[in-house]
Amino acid sequence: MTNTTEFRYLGKGRKLIEGLEKITGTAQYVADMQIPGLLHAGVVLSPYAHAKIVSIDTSAARAMPGVAGVFTADDLPTRDRAMNSRHSAVLARERVLFCGQPVVAVVADSEAHARDAVAAVVVEYEPLPVIADMLAALEPDAPVIWPDGLPKDGVDLTAAHAAVDKDGEDVERAPSNLHATNHYRRGDVARGLAEADVVVERTYRTPIVHQAYLEPHASLAIPEPHRGAVTVHTSTQGQFGVRDEVARLLSLPKNKVRVVPMAIGGGFGAKYGLIDPLVAALAVTIRRPVRLVLTRSEDFLTTTPSPATIIELTTGARRDGTITAIKAVITMDNGVFPFTLGGIVSILLGGYYKCENVDISVREVLTHKPQGGAYRAPGAPSATFAIESNIDEMAHLLGIDPMTVRLTSTVETGDLMGNNDPWPNLGLRQCLEALQQHPAWAERHLGPDEGIGIAVGGWPCGMSPAASVCRVDNDGTVRIHVGSVDISGVNSSLVLIAAEILDISPDQVELLQGDTRDGPRAGPSGGSQTTYSVSGAVASAARAARQKLLEVASHHFEASVEDLELKQGAVHVRGLPDRSVSIATLAEESERLRGGPGPIIGEGTAAVSENAPGFVAHLAKVHVDRNTGQVTLKQYVAVQDVGFAMNPTMVYGQIHGGAVQGIGWGLNEAMIYDRYGQLLTGTFMDYSIPAFDSVPDIETVLIQNPAPHGPFGARGIGEPPITAGAAAIANAVRAAVGVRVTELPIRAERVWQALHAEA
Amino acid sequence: MTNTTEFRYLGKGRKLIEGLEKITGTAQYVADMQIPGLLHAGVVLSPYAHAKIVSIDTSAARAMPGVAGVFTADDLPTRDRAMNSRHSAVLARERVLFCGQPVVAVVADSEAHARDAVAAVVVEYEPLPVIADMLAALEPDAPVIWPDGLPKDGVDLTAAHAAVDKDGEDVERAPSNLHATNHYRRGDVARGLAEADVVVERTYRTPIVHQAYLEPHASLAIPEPHRGAVTVHTSTQGQFGVRDEVARLLSLPKNKVRVVPMAIGGGFGAKYGLIDPLVAALAVTIRRPVRLVLTRSEDFLTTTPSPATIIELTTGARRDGTITAIKAVITMDNGVFPFTLGGIVSILLGGYYKCENVDISVREVLTHKPQGGAYRAPGAPSATFAIESNIDEMAHLLGIDPMTVRLTSTVETGDLMGNNDPWPNLGLRQCLEALQQHPAWAERHLGPDEGIGIAVGGWPCGMSPAASVCRVDNDGTVRIHVGSVDISGVNSSLVLIAAEILDISPDQVELLQGDTRDGPRAGPSGGSQTTYSVSGAVASAARAARQKLLEVASHHFEASVEDLELKQGAVHVRGLPDRSVSIATLAEESERLRGGPGPIIGEGTAAVSENAPGFVAHLAKVHVDRNTGQVTLKQYVAVQDVGFAMNPTMVYGQIHGGAVQGIGWGLNEAMIYDRYGQLLTGTFMDYSIPAFDSVPDIETVLIQNPAPHGPFGARGIGEPPITAGAAAIANAVRAAVGVRVTELPIRAERVWQALHAEA
Repeated sequence: MTNTTEFRYLGKGRKLIEGLEKITGTAQYVADMQIPGLLHAGVVLSPYAHAKIVSIDTSAARAMPGVAGVFTADDLPTRDRAMNSRHSAVLARERVLFCGQPVVAVVADSEAHARDAVAAVVVEYEPLPVIADMLAALEPDAPVIWPDGLPKDGVDLTAAHAAVDKDGEDVERAPSNLHATNHYRRGDVARGLAEADVVVERTYRTPIVHQAYLEPHASLAIPEPHRGAVTVHTSTQGQFGVRDEVARLLSLPKNKVRVVPMAIGGGFGAKYGLIDPLVAALAVTIRRPVRLVLTRSEDFLTTTPSPATIIELTTGARRDGTITAIKAVITMDNGVFPFTLGGIVSILLGGYYKCENVDISVREVLTHKPQGGAYRAPGAPSATFAIESNIDEMAHLLGIDPMTVRLTSTVETGDLMGNNDPWPNLGLRQCLEALQQHPAWAERHLGPDEGIGIAVGGWPCGMSPAASVCRVDNDGTVRIHVGSVDISGVNSSLVLIAAEILDISPDQVELLQGDTRDGPRAGPSGGSQTTYSVSGAVASAARAARQKLLEVASHHFEASVEDLELKQGAVHVRGLPDRSVSIATLAEESERLRGGPGPIIGEGTAAVSENAPGFVAHLAKVHVDRNTGQVTLKQYVAVQDVGFAMNPTMVYGQIHGGAVQGIGWGLNEAMIYDRYGQLLTGTFMDYSIPAFDSVPDIETVLIQNPAPHGPFGARGIGEPPITAGAAAIANAVRAAVGVRVTELPIRAERVWQALHAEA
Repeated sequence: MTNTTEFRYLGKGRKLIEGLEKITGTAQYVADMQIPGLLHAGVVLSPYAHAKIVSIDTSAARAMPGVAGVFTADDLPTRDRAMNSRHSAVLARERVLFCGQPVVAVVADSEAHARDAVAAVVVEYEPLPVIADMLAALEPDAPVIWPDGLPKDGVDLTAAHAAVDKDGEDVERAPSNLHATNHYRRGDVARGLAEADVVVERTYRTPIVHQAYLEPHASLAIPEPHRGAVTVHTSTQGQFGVRDEVARLLSLPKNKVRVVPMAIGGGFGAKYGLIDPLVAALAVTIRRPVRLVLTRSEDFLTTTPSPATIIELTTGARRDGTITAIKAVITMDNGVFPFTLGGIVSILLGGYYKCENVDISVREVLTHKPQGGAYRAPGAPSATFAIESNIDEMAHLLGIDPMTVRLTSTVETGDLMGNNDPWPNLGLRQCLEALQQHPAWAERHLGPDEGIGIAVGGWPCGMSPAASVCRVDNDGTVRIHVGSVDISGVNSSLVLIAAEILDISPDQVELLQGDTRDGPRAGPSGGSQTTYSVSGAVASAARAARQKLLEVASHHFEASVEDLELKQGAVHVRGLPDRSVSIATLAEESERLRGGPGPIIGEGTAAVSENAPGFVAHLAKVHVDRNTGQVTLKQYVAVQDVGFAMNPTMVYGQIHGGAVQGIGWGLNEAMIYDRYGQLLTGTFMDYSIPAFDSVPDIETVLIQNPAPHGPFGARGIGEPPITAGAAAIANAVRAAVGVRVTELPIRAERVWQALHAEA
């Protein structure tokens, strides 16, 4: 536990930097931008999940009022990228492969005109057989979605999310809908099962879940025709990745693409450059600024939700709770373009408990649905739902309480992940012990048909090298320049780090978020890596600036740097309390002092060598209405090892938000497709996310088990709180009414069916 | 002479970076900016040079179409700054003090509406006595312009222009129009004159000269009401100074003011924040973006031209040409606000020649005219015209050729300036020797009434500490971040420096010019300091980045840094020519390499300890029409010690431009005010600048006498070429027709009068 009293600013709560802008409505989202001469794009989406494009008639659309252009795949510089890139928002060519795939783009002088023109485009399709289901896709006689081989150029986002090796490689064999496989093994799982006193075998299903950010995808591109360049303003989690995608798909050098990250209304793993190449292609082609803001339904249809999974899981345990075997077959429904998450599902599924015998195989499957994508702790809610349900079920069968079972076998530093790599330092046991002490567990008060469930969850947490620049202005303002996007309030922590190191008020610190041109490099903001990765760079830059301030002070006082100390905004001569000079004055002197160190500037980089896993233990208390199956969440406790809470206000915010999304996985959310690949849940009326009145207070307990390589001991904290909710709720339902629900979300009808099936 | 062959890129000509934008019309000047909701300002200027403001009636203006507001001094946050700041574009209050002073500002929805409303404002004045002449201002019974004492808060720009001490201090005594004096002495000037074989005594007059930039002053301010902040986009030579002025006059913290320097259509010393405080005050008050672009006539009336001077000069020399005495009284007409240039005039006047006996006194005078300001080598053309005319006249009287006289006594490194400080390393003698060899001098071909004149000139050149950041992107693009404004093509040199150090094509280097928020600190671009000051910072940043590339390469090759070398865009293993890796790949690896040095970034600063004077020797050949007095320039040679020409293309450009402006001083330019302080030359029809057909080719010779502390030996080069033109032309006229013209410009009527006076 880090002693936070050693710090003046770190560890104290501080509000969101851009809160004022967001509250007053002056924060600039892409949709707010006013650009002279801006054109508005609209997209014609495929109504079929699989069809041949027979003809496209744009003549009526072109004649509509205000229309500046109507474009098919052939009209854009991305023409050769359509259908052979792993990119689902470049206009389709010849065939459409999922319902919602963009086929035609319209550009007009207003959004209304663009919408009208979209409606006037006539596309003639010839429907083709649809593979909408992952198991059907694996049938030997199933039509093959990519008969001529997989599109080759793709970007793997998993590496950005978790510091683990790339998932399963593409399968090089006869074309099939099984696009990748993987197999992780240790020990002898058959022997492990044979040695078990109890074996639980279940098949768990989790649906496609959408990231459901408040702000739909939005992008605005401004071309510079004479330079052959384009600037893209976008709602993104990572400007550098978007830059690379736009450059790749438009065949531009990277330095001709500038990507400016705007205020972002939620990303949760989905905003790494989906519509930007299309918008950039339109702008470059028509030589005018173009903006596209997806409607909510378009966003549901076209973007990249989290894959559905089927996890066939068998676990065994001895009478004392020792886990003897974990065996699983994981099948992932990745939609129409290759995307791989099975690796991380395996790492977690086989990585929460000490177990000598593990056998996990992964099947990555293609279907005629939108490409799968990342969603906060991608794969973790599914893996956790499966393993934590099985562990819980074994505990019930063994008659051991679920806390004891977990404390018996929970992984500790150095134990193995599902892929047999050792875990770096982690604090799962401390989380469980804290939960064990929590009144919600220790003093369980249960009414009729109420139950308490617990589950653990974790995330390896990512890390990417990052750089930062720190400058001290002559009014004492300290500016920190970073290239990371703030999706979670992380900038407030970065400000506190600079304030702490320079010992000045955080009010004097200004955070500059750079674009791809002026921003120091940082990884994308995803995978709980930003605080962990960028903080070290900021700290290092601030320390470099601090050193220069001391050098100028050394000129100022004609004293050696060793005799000086920086505190509370000024440099003091040790032992002479009345001799001090403010950093503002020192900065001002540095800008005049010839032969001195020059203006106060420091750069810093960080390239942490080891990741810092973040673990949680969650508790859910539910009431189940036996007549309807309705599950009501009565209490929720989230314990999390955060390493060190630099800014507790934001840490609590992240845990609250993540926990509520985990509850959404558990009780609410599913994108449902029919057998024709048609989305049945394309609005927030159909796709249900947790509402305020259905979520109790999230009681939060922070464990501060310092990450050995983390900045001030901090760990990434964004992903872990989403992982355990669905499992905890399922276990609570089991405790309340004795039924084991194995498919998410745990809606009333599913519980009712389970109650009746098992009755 | 630096051997340029040691460099791959430096010393080779390279075109202007932003040339494409300027040629295609896409460069963004302030007037080009399109901002939603932008309001346009217009200013009501005083028609009187001195008057009481009796009343202001804005009612008719407020009722005009499109008018959003009409503001007097009392309506703006600058209200208490009007009339007590040394700032001439804050609205006047109670009194007006020069013709052209802004009194009322109008803000409307179009420029036309703003102009119409300006015409509808009714200001009633009560005229007061006008002091329009600097000698009249010094009469004992002259009304005192600031009877209650001088306005105290001012910004002294001289220090930014030349690395010399501040000019004369304000005079603390009974209020008078003599606002400052100074006196520089060495030896015994009376004895020096007594020892002379020839004494020349003349009074030289130079007029007020305007900087005559192509783009008038323009500023656009965008308020952020909820933050109490304002962003100013402006045509400026120094964003940090403008930021400070706006913050000071609006009583805002500096960090609430962001100043973005836009493309600039010439500054020449005049663009350090004149109209920005007014525009910012309007925007903050009306809470809307506001732009003001002065018309040409408004610009002539309201801005800060170069002061007029009267130099009473007596010099003596021995028969052999040795200079025995320099005695001068310098009177400066600084307009209505204190401004001091007499110090630098003295430094140069007494600093071109070895001379043991010097006595120079300076009188800085106030008149009811616009405040004086800096113009390229401020004060130098006046000082040079005087001393170089007198030296030339002594040569004639002694019968020694003017080249020999100069070579006899010209200052060398360590000789004294007019203020008795020693000159740092300088190359004036080399310039003269080169001019002596030039065919224009060596082979003089003269027709009837033709003459050749020569003159030397110099400038101490400025220096300000500066910082820079260098980043290497993963496509091999190198970005250099600076906070200096490019008014002269200096960015092309900075690019070459980075290219040279990193040994990559300059095409791979991108220069980012920062604003006050994101730019590393640099001094204003004036006083020939930018190349000299910023280059070192860029070089240091590039070297830091280079070192990091080698560190990553050391990981890459598992070799020690000592065994690696960076050349032609790649790192090679010494002795293994086939083992190399591109810097793009290294940058890409650095962004992934955990435990490595992190992304490739380097910061650098420079705080040069000694300035590097720039000297010239110019030659003018003229023909004089004895019937009309018309002087026609037939040939012009400019020899200049540039230290090292990093980018000869831009160096030639600077010398050409400066020489032409010097010719303007000599033959064309004068702002003429009548006895009521009314400007008679407020358009380009009346204020004549050199036209293409009146300027011969500028034949340019570069001397490369390396500056000991300069980057690669470079010196500042912007100011020196303007200094000597007027003197060289006057000397040529003397050679051609035997008359000495002692007042600039040397227009036909003045020569005609001289011919007739001396006939």
